[in-house]
Amino acid sequence: MGPKTLMYPMPAVLVGSSVGGKPNYMVAAWCSIACMVPPMVSVALNKARHTLKGIYENKAFSVNIPSTGQVVEADYCGITAGASVDKSKVFESFYGKLRTAPMARECPVSLECKLFNTMDCGSHVLVVGEIVETYVEREALAGNLPDIKKVDPLIYSDGRYYRVGEYVADAFSAGKAYKKRR
Amino acid sequence: MGPKTLMYPMPAVLVGSSVGGKPNYMVAAWCSIACMVPPMVSVALNKARHTLKGIYENKAFSVNIPSTGQVVEADYCGITAGASVDKSKVFESFYGKLRTAPMARECPVSLECKLFNTMDCGSHVLVVGEIVETYVEREALAGNLPDIKKVDPLIYSDGRYYRVGEYVADAFSAGKAYKKRR
Repeated sequence: MGPKTLMYPMPAVLVGSSVGGKPNYMVAAWCSIACMVPPMVSVALNKARHTLKGIYENKAFSVNIPSTGQVVEADYCGITAGASVDKSKVFESFYGKLRTAPMARECPVSLECKLFNTMDCGSHVLVVGEIVETYVEREALAGNLPDIKKVDPLIYSDGRYYRVGEYVADAFSAGKAYKKRR
Repeated sequence: MGPKTLMYPMPAVLVGSSVGGKPNYMVAAWCSIACMVPPMVSVALNKARHTLKGIYENKAFSVNIPSTGQVVEADYCGITAGASVDKSKVFESFYGKLRTAPMARECPVSLECKLFNTMDCGSHVLVVGEIVETYVEREALAGNLPDIKKVDPLIYSDGRYYRVGEYVADAFSAGKAYKKRR
């Protein structure tokens, strides 16, 4: 098919940054965990992004996971550019220990990140941040960790949003059936 | 909650590499697209991984998206270490132009990657590869692109696999409702 940027599933996260002292949020699907110790997150950002200015300025940003109930607000942050539209009131922003990484109170999960490093890949910069704090809405928890069905995150794929569907199998367990077959 | 590696949703991909001349596959959830031009993919790998040896050796690897129908084989690759178990027969491997990036024929989507760069993050190395070719099963296509519902990928979260659920909204469209409200 030629080289294509295919990945299934991808999240739809809101990257929060403070640009010129104002909170700003953009939607990103190219976001993932980058390291366990210390905990880190990576997000690929187009070099033209307003968000990137804020990240370089403050060496801080946030990754917020919206729920399907925030699809209108999240998508609004995807179809508008922070350079021309003030998105500071789309979410109620709160701040943590870094003080310059705005987080969206409406989102069930927020990661507060300190810029660790960047990698220039071409059209995009891979921004890697150390997660200094995690904020989870009480209703999204099942015991000590969030439950993905309660978080009810958006899945982004080819111009559409989907929700997480049914349980398939237990990890680190389903594969035992293969072992026995051999 | 303290810093935690939370991300929703995450994929369950199979990273293919040739280690000592043998195809090997491991499961990874910390995988994402890293760049559009040129197309690139990133995956965070624990430094102890057998897979990493093959990537450094060949400067090549693959990212394969299993379908829910491959959950047993995929999870088997997650609970076994390539250093002690020969996983070369779990999937039927095929090779593309790089010749040293084994891909799993059973997976509906495979990305063939040339190592571009790495970033040492601590316990994990962020491996970034340029996608040189993409292979998609005909049945997973809807027009020119794969359809996520036909790919039927695995979602990994907190020890469980889920499938993609129902359609929520159109991206670059749902947000217009917010605009009109203002």
